[in-house]
Amino acid sequence: MPTSVLGYAAHSTTAPLAPWRFDRRDPRPDDVVIDILYCGVCHSDLHNVRNDWGNASFPMVPGHEIIGTVTAVGGAVTRFRVGDRVGVGCLVDSCFACEPCEAGEEQYCSHFVLTYNDTDRRDGLPTYGGYSDKIVVTERFVLKVPETLDPAAAAPLLCAGITTWSPLKHWKVGPGSKVAVVGLGGLGHMGLKLAKALGAEVTLFSRSPGKEADARRLGADAIVISTDAAQMAAAAERFDLIIDTVPYVHDVNPYVPTLKVDGTLVLVGYLGPLEPTLNTAQLVVRRKSVAGSLIGGIRETQEMLDFCGAHGITSDVEVIAIKDIDAAYERLLKSDVKYRFVIDMATLTA
Amino acid sequence: MPTSVLGYAAHSTTAPLAPWRFDRRDPRPDDVVIDILYCGVCHSDLHNVRNDWGNASFPMVPGHEIIGTVTAVGGAVTRFRVGDRVGVGCLVDSCFACEPCEAGEEQYCSHFVLTYNDTDRRDGLPTYGGYSDKIVVTERFVLKVPETLDPAAAAPLLCAGITTWSPLKHWKVGPGSKVAVVGLGGLGHMGLKLAKALGAEVTLFSRSPGKEADARRLGADAIVISTDAAQMAAAAERFDLIIDTVPYVHDVNPYVPTLKVDGTLVLVGYLGPLEPTLNTAQLVVRRKSVAGSLIGGIRETQEMLDFCGAHGITSDVEVIAIKDIDAAYERLLKSDVKYRFVIDMATLTA
Repeated sequence: MPTSVLGYAAHSTTAPLAPWRFDRRDPRPDDVVIDILYCGVCHSDLHNVRNDWGNASFPMVPGHEIIGTVTAVGGAVTRFRVGDRVGVGCLVDSCFACEPCEAGEEQYCSHFVLTYNDTDRRDGLPTYGGYSDKIVVTERFVLKVPETLDPAAAAPLLCAGITTWSPLKHWKVGPGSKVAVVGLGGLGHMGLKLAKALGAEVTLFSRSPGKEADARRLGADAIVISTDAAQMAAAAERFDLIIDTVPYVHDVNPYVPTLKVDGTLVLVGYLGPLEPTLNTAQLVVRRKSVAGSLIGGIRETQEMLDFCGAHGITSDVEVIAIKDIDAAYERLLKSDVKYRFVIDMATLTA
Repeated sequence: MPTSVLGYAAHSTTAPLAPWRFDRRDPRPDDVVIDILYCGVCHSDLHNVRNDWGNASFPMVPGHEIIGTVTAVGGAVTRFRVGDRVGVGCLVDSCFACEPCEAGEEQYCSHFVLTYNDTDRRDGLPTYGGYSDKIVVTERFVLKVPETLDPAAAAPLLCAGITTWSPLKHWKVGPGSKVAVVGLGGLGHMGLKLAKALGAEVTLFSRSPGKEADARRLGADAIVISTDAAQMAAAAERFDLIIDTVPYVHDVNPYVPTLKVDGTLVLVGYLGPLEPTLNTAQLVVRRKSVAGSLIGGIRETQEMLDFCGAHGITSDVEVIAIKDIDAAYERLLKSDVKYRFVIDMATLTA
């Protein structure tokens, strides 16, 4: 029999989110049932609820930075037991058969299933996310979360953490690497922490000098004010990798000259047309690249969580009650959070 | 004493090119003196003569696809002797000390010296190119050209060849790779030949079906008509690497979906703003890259020439008399050449 679950749902692009009761499926043999303790609030929750990407399906239960405790497992589950501290990120299923799936890069499977606002590929039912008290997830998409990490502060690792970790690893960042991060939000602050812990020399690009102290506390060795032409010129040909976390349209051209020969600027936050347009001259004459990267695979998400456990890395969070989610969205629009809202699911009542 | 040399020079952006006598330097100890047999006509010769890039210096002797015979060597030269068949490409000097120079990638040295329309970094004098009967070049920038190759048809290897070879090697193309080439001109036809010889499965993107027979003769396994939406859709996620040789502003967006996950579109012909603007969505959701690449280093130019010698690869050329250079430029503007003009320097008289 399906389990009745209490969640917090958007019923339209404009109505406030509100308590909503819905069913989760009976656990399949490979399912893990999780009591949700905390769920991070990602900027994409807001994009989805407001239908910024044109594919919103209501009622929508957002949330894909989920931390919880296992309460039951299906008969075929081997890696988890009742009581385990676990996490669920942006994906809850994929085809298991394509080239990306076989490489453990399920985020590039053409048939992956998103944690919410998507359709389960097996039963055809809508997926509902982490703004709820329980979730049922295929074992392959459940992560072990080190018990040493604060569970609220660990929640954003499941999206903001892996989204910056994956390009750092893909472009082979380590000791000796010079990495810059554009934007100091949920993703950007994780980019600073993770790049620093991987041994890189880390710089924050920021439009405002006011962020310097915080950036240094988070791992930056330097800050470059992107509106200061002299500072930008002095940073010419400095970076192997720039992780651009800005989630809205912006000009990437000023950053390209700060890449070394063979350097890459990787966009992780913005999907859309580049305005102003990209000038290719620097790409050609210095063999530079502009690339993108999407969250990360399950194997590397586990690797990232283990790394964070070993290094004591979590997100800087502001824990909120679920009734305050609409106010949190408003503050998110103004970048008024240091650096991630996380919902305490103990505050969820009907 | 400097040697008096006969060349063909542009004296302004509008005057026809005309015979012009000038001096080449006395050979330095590391110099090689070359009698020029053939010189290819690159699209960039036209850009330079017409001052399209705003840095033209007149009189200008264009030409950077040079094939000739060694007639003298300085006392410190070790790799060449009188009588050797040699080539000179786009570069005649660099700093020898920076990271790119030490990696044998002189094309990314910030102090490289172009074969013409540049300034020699040692004596401060203008450089003059291959539309002339002799040239004097630092040994490091002189290439051995296999004697088995037709010298006229080998000339374009020095720019069109290396410009497509370098990205093929940098992005590790070999057996099993799927490569596409955009544009069938001097660069594009070399891209087809070289990618095929490296073992890749090769596709030409073209706007016109009329090029299919020629494309297949040059090495293409397939042709995709880029204006045909159904053909473009069928090519989705097919290529590891796309070499875009188009030398003018154009829309790269239609090609990006034909890259596989982790695929790269590399621009080798166009330096400037992308119009229409690039949409980043495909880059992010499939970890694709848009990159650029500039000619190639001397080590890999030699590697390419040796490979062409071993595989009997040259350019398809139309040999012209130097008096016809202005007419050739006009035809180049209409893409009316299969696939490279090469000047027979025996036709150069005062």
